[in-house]
Amino acid sequence: MKKINKPIILIDPFPRSLNLIFSKKNLSILKKNFTLIDSPKNKIQKNNFYKKNIEKAIFIIGQPNLSKSLLVKAKNLKAIFNVESNFLDNMDYDYCFKNDIHVLSTSPVFAQPVAEMALGLTLSIARSIHIAHNDFVKSKEKYGGEISGKNFLLKNKNFGIIGFGDLANSLLPLIKPFANNILAYDPWVPSFMLKKKNVLSVNLKDLLKNSDIIYILASITSSNVGMIDSAKLKLLKSGAAFILMSRAAIVNFKDLYKFLKKKKNFAAIDVFPVEPFPKNDPFRKLDNVIFSPHRAGALDIVFKEMGEIVLQDIYLMMKNLPPRLCKRAERETVKNLRSKPVDIN
Amino acid sequence: MKKINKPIILIDPFPRSLNLIFSKKNLSILKKNFTLIDSPKNKIQKNNFYKKNIEKAIFIIGQPNLSKSLLVKAKNLKAIFNVESNFLDNMDYDYCFKNDIHVLSTSPVFAQPVAEMALGLTLSIARSIHIAHNDFVKSKEKYGGEISGKNFLLKNKNFGIIGFGDLANSLLPLIKPFANNILAYDPWVPSFMLKKKNVLSVNLKDLLKNSDIIYILASITSSNVGMIDSAKLKLLKSGAAFILMSRAAIVNFKDLYKFLKKKKNFAAIDVFPVEPFPKNDPFRKLDNVIFSPHRAGALDIVFKEMGEIVLQDIYLMMKNLPPRLCKRAERETVKNLRSKPVDIN
Amino acid sequence: MKKINKPIILIDPFPRSLNLIFSKKNLSILKKNFTLIDSPKNKIQKNNFYKKNIEKAIFIIGQPNLSKSLLVKAKNLKAIFNVESNFLDNMDYDYCFKNDIHVLSTSPVFAQPVAEMALGLTLSIARSIHIAHNDFVKSKEKYGGEISGKNFLLKNKNFGIIGFGDLANSLLPLIKPFANNILAYDPWVPSFMLKKKNVLSVNLKDLLKNSDIIYILASITSSNVGMIDSAKLKLLKSGAAFILMSRAAIVNFKDLYKFLKKKKNFAAIDVFPVEPFPKNDPFRKLDNVIFSPHRAGALDIVFKEMGEIVLQDIYLMMKNLPPRLCKRAERETVKNLRSKPVDIN
Amino acid sequence: MKKINKPIILIDPFPRSLNLIFSKKNLSILKKNFTLIDSPKNKIQKNNFYKKNIEKAIFIIGQPNLSKSLLVKAKNLKAIFNVESNFLDNMDYDYCFKNDIHVLSTSPVFAQPVAEMALGLTLSIARSIHIAHNDFVKSKEKYGGEISGKNFLLKNKNFGIIGFGDLANSLLPLIKPFANNILAYDPWVPSFMLKKKNVLSVNLKDLLKNSDIIYILASITSSNVGMIDSAKLKLLKSGAAFILMSRAAIVNFKDLYKFLKKKKNFAAIDVFPVEPFPKNDPFRKLDNVIFSPHRAGALDIVFKEMGEIVLQDIYLMMKNLPPRLCKRAERETVKNLRSKPVDIN
Repeated sequence: MKKINKPIILIDPFPRSLNLIFSKKNLSILKKNFTLIDSPKNKIQKNNFYKKNIEKAIFIIGQPNLSKSLLVKAKNLKAIFNVESNFLDNMDYDYCFKNDIHVLSTSPVFAQPVAEMALGLTLSIARSIHIAHNDFVKSKEKYGGEISGKNFLLKNKNFGIIGFGDLANSLLPLIKPFANNILAYDPWVPSFMLKKKNVLSVNLKDLLKNSDIIYILASITSSNVGMIDSAKLKLLKSGAAFILMSRAAIVNFKDLYKFLKKKKNFAAIDVFPVEPFPKNDPFRKLDNVIFSPHRAGALDIVFKEMGEIVLQDIYLMMKNLPPRLCKRAERETVKNLRSKPVDIN
Repeated sequence: MKKINKPIILIDPFPRSLNLIFSKKNLSILKKNFTLIDSPKNKIQKNNFYKKNIEKAIFIIGQPNLSKSLLVKAKNLKAIFNVESNFLDNMDYDYCFKNDIHVLSTSPVFAQPVAEMALGLTLSIARSIHIAHNDFVKSKEKYGGEISGKNFLLKNKNFGIIGFGDLANSLLPLIKPFANNILAYDPWVPSFMLKKKNVLSVNLKDLLKNSDIIYILASITSSNVGMIDSAKLKLLKSGAAFILMSRAAIVNFKDLYKFLKKKKNFAAIDVFPVEPFPKNDPFRKLDNVIFSPHRAGALDIVFKEMGEIVLQDIYLMMKNLPPRLCKRAERETVKNLRSKPVDIN
Repeated sequence: MKKINKPIILIDPFPRSLNLIFSKKNLSILKKNFTLIDSPKNKIQKNNFYKKNIEKAIFIIGQPNLSKSLLVKAKNLKAIFNVESNFLDNMDYDYCFKNDIHVLSTSPVFAQPVAEMALGLTLSIARSIHIAHNDFVKSKEKYGGEISGKNFLLKNKNFGIIGFGDLANSLLPLIKPFANNILAYDPWVPSFMLKKKNVLSVNLKDLLKNSDIIYILASITSSNVGMIDSAKLKLLKSGAAFILMSRAAIVNFKDLYKFLKKKKNFAAIDVFPVEPFPKNDPFRKLDNVIFSPHRAGALDIVFKEMGEIVLQDIYLMMKNLPPRLCKRAERETVKNLRSKPVDIN
Repeated sequence: MKKINKPIILIDPFPRSLNLIFSKKNLSILKKNFTLIDSPKNKIQKNNFYKKNIEKAIFIIGQPNLSKSLLVKAKNLKAIFNVESNFLDNMDYDYCFKNDIHVLSTSPVFAQPVAEMALGLTLSIARSIHIAHNDFVKSKEKYGGEISGKNFLLKNKNFGIIGFGDLANSLLPLIKPFANNILAYDPWVPSFMLKKKNVLSVNLKDLLKNSDIIYILASITSSNVGMIDSAKLKLLKSGAAFILMSRAAIVNFKDLYKFLKKKKNFAAIDVFPVEPFPKNDPFRKLDNVIFSPHRAGALDIVFKEMGEIVLQDIYLMMKNLPPRLCKRAERETVKNLRSKPVDIN
């Protein structure tokens, strides 16, 4: 009897799964307090599933196609938890915004792991950690300073950050103990906010000219595709390190390849224009680049944090409080943030 | 004529060289203000050189054998700059201490690079950075979370530090943004000093049992040789990472090998009981270890900092002020700190 | 001619004024880019003013009464900037939320000045700064430790924060260099968020029992009126300091008076149940209390920051980006946050 | 019997007392492990006391007159703990340095309380905290911004520190969360050391011209008496705050008075050229000054820390390790650091 009265959540977390994102404990809390109804995976069945069930649902965990004709039925819906974490162009966001339905993404869980990976990659290229290890495993290691010719310290360097959102806010405390100055370029973020964090708001050109270590942490938007091209790369200081963490499309990869082949600058790359990256691409031969195959956020513990923030935000909304942990889609930006679906979990 | 009046420095920086440790600018400042007299390398000639010249010298840059019979002649000597940075048992330290001669080591320059390397190694093992890169170079990379099974975040972890001297003081600000608690074990450092830094002073056993990441940063002393053996390693939490940065002899390497072969714990090793490490040692096959062939401090920029701190301390002593940047040998500890000579620069 | 095409802002910033909140430079930027139309102060005239002008307005600077019948005309309105900074129950918020009108408050400018004042008051009571100064001015000062009997250091103390919003987030970095542990109680803030900041999420009772310094930084809501009463105050450690910064109504003032009269605990009070506070209230005689007549946020430079964040958010919205600096009214909480109008500027 | 074998400490802590500096617990530890022999207070008796007892002593707690003829008898003496914390010109320091006797001062315990007081005084003048409180107590308070005309925030200000020793090192973390830039002037401290702390080493003139808040934290030396005079004060920015914490003699007080009377600058003063300060000195009438009658370090808890660091350093020396917590007299500087005796405890 009691079961009937439990609020209903529609479960459609593809490409994730409930077991990936919820710890055992959190899943049992969820099941104890809500009735979970699983969506079928088949596309046509799925549409019928939502037609039938959306009216009863208080939450949806997933990013299904939701036309206005479906959403008008969703009289009890408080929030859609997009655990894919990229906003696709597949639902009527405006309808949601005007009808008190939060559209939430679990993307904030990626900020800390990406920040830690960014620092890890930076330290690896600064000190040739990966190269020295690989030599050691092959019993060809060189002791002391022999392969450290172009190595550098992070202490007292200037750090430049392109795109100052969640990722940058997680990276900031990690680089502060090293940094001389921290520069940022982000046309969406007012300088007042950066000044409060003791970050200098500069234009893109000044950032590229004055930074020793440059992080690309921006989301992809209609206006920054290919923004970093050979004209921009020319501005880099000799020896400046270029760390690409957020979206490959911000960079013209051919220009980046030419630049890194010719110059002594270091780079770290976690995102690629096509993934898997072509096996015989000459980029792979560059010894001043460290490669990370789109791994910065992909960590079991991080997927479990998705479930944690979903659950804690559900708890707040059940008390008629606003969600605090997941990121809300915003009407002004959601259409500029369109991403490709995530195919690899 | 003027040249005669310039104070005299005896130059004997083996295994370093003046060009290694002084930038061009600093070397020209040194030459402009002092008369530099180079020591011969031949052992017998060297002794004669000191017999002849030590009386005139205001400073010695080097770590020569200095018996009391030589030192009694050194009426003008203000300081001996040991740029090898290890105190050997080859001079009459007590005579120096009683006769206003500072015996100084340039070891503090290594603190920041070792700290940065320690964090870099930690992040590499936490996120399999070196493994993913090497797969990528071989076009065998796995995208996303595939190789991240045992990966972990540093955020909110407990950090344990064994040996709380210069290295630990440089590492501390770098790990603070990550740390939940920071524990330390160092019988030479009073708990009062650690508490002021918000570091918990604990015994060795509690440190090993409660830390997620353990750094060995202690100098080698008569009482800590082989201190970390299988009995101690058994105390580690499952998954705790063990980062060996300062001296190999603190650890029983056979026990460490057995432990790491059996358990899932991660390790990073920068110092080895013999260097070069035997080519076919099975240690090299362990895939839960990252190896760094004694590279943590060996950086061109760091050797140049040696010259910088020598010069700035010379400048202070010429104003009759105490040196501030180099580390002073202390009568109580210099005899416990005996090290082997450095053969690789 | 050009003037006709400038977007229109309705100006109604009572109890502030344009000159209070905008620097000369910012005001001239505003006037150059927008047509500003001043609202009359008379209530009836005001209503007519909005009837006539709201259709044309792109922004309103002020917190006028806005019924739905007025708001439906506001076809171009992007945002209402409430520079009083308290949300009153005088407009149809729901209509705004459903119709893409941001309702924004400039309250975030108060976070830093309140945080600085909170720390200043804490240090004054910890060290009797105000008492010693006052004695000095009267030539009755006592040197050295004579009046320091109950003085204390902030170093290594436990800090407890009740209400973890903007104020707490500004206070947090200021107390971190002192704190042993930082505890927080806030039913609106998930523990996950606090853990990321290395703040311990605790219940109210545990906070009161374990903190050496307690800050009241919560907004007033329907559920926390009178929350701190004699039963709660009894839980305080002997000597714990009680710093009341946000809203007087959270505390039962009679109970607080009795508690402070009887116990040796210190208190700092910036907000009072009635202001001005009764002249002969015995509270004024307590020598373990420092009084600050509702001054924590009231600073000329801070009012100028209001104009700065209004202008920077206007600039974002004119580029069709979401506002980032002002605080948005939220449908779930705006009705719980009802405040009294501000009568003193 | 056992008692005979306990090592002997001579007790002569004037102007302190054992009960002031040792907690009950620490005093009982001391008494359990050592034989304490109290020095008489009478000057002639005192000399005889040392003649008779110095040979047996392992430590002296106090700052007695110690001529070479006394010190030559002190065959077992490991250290003299000067708990007055000012080095007087009353002992043969050189003899001590050449004969393995540490001369130690407990001055480091004052660093944290002085730093906290410095920040407290700064916040009080920035926000008129003491003035508003005193008005309130007199029922003459003004609410809100009425007396805040010249108030300022610390956030994003430039801080200048004159004298970068223990006090500065304790103040540094407290002001970092506020500071835009931190400038320092100290001819004894090499720029290399400051750069590592992200502090800019500048000359005195540039410091005075570019700082919003200026701290005098220098020890008095033969070369800085009266260093801050009217010519120097003229360099201050309009509105810059001047915080005098360490030694009055660094400042020409007449010049400071004239400057503060004429200009709108704020000042905080903890040390005075004569103490007690003349009762009718016009300085007391300046309303832009906050006065603290030499109280910055005088705290019961701080005196207890003296005993704590004495005990912990005794413990290290009993293990033949060097002391780490007390400050050592240094042969180069001890003669420049001569202070007047402390008459007020």
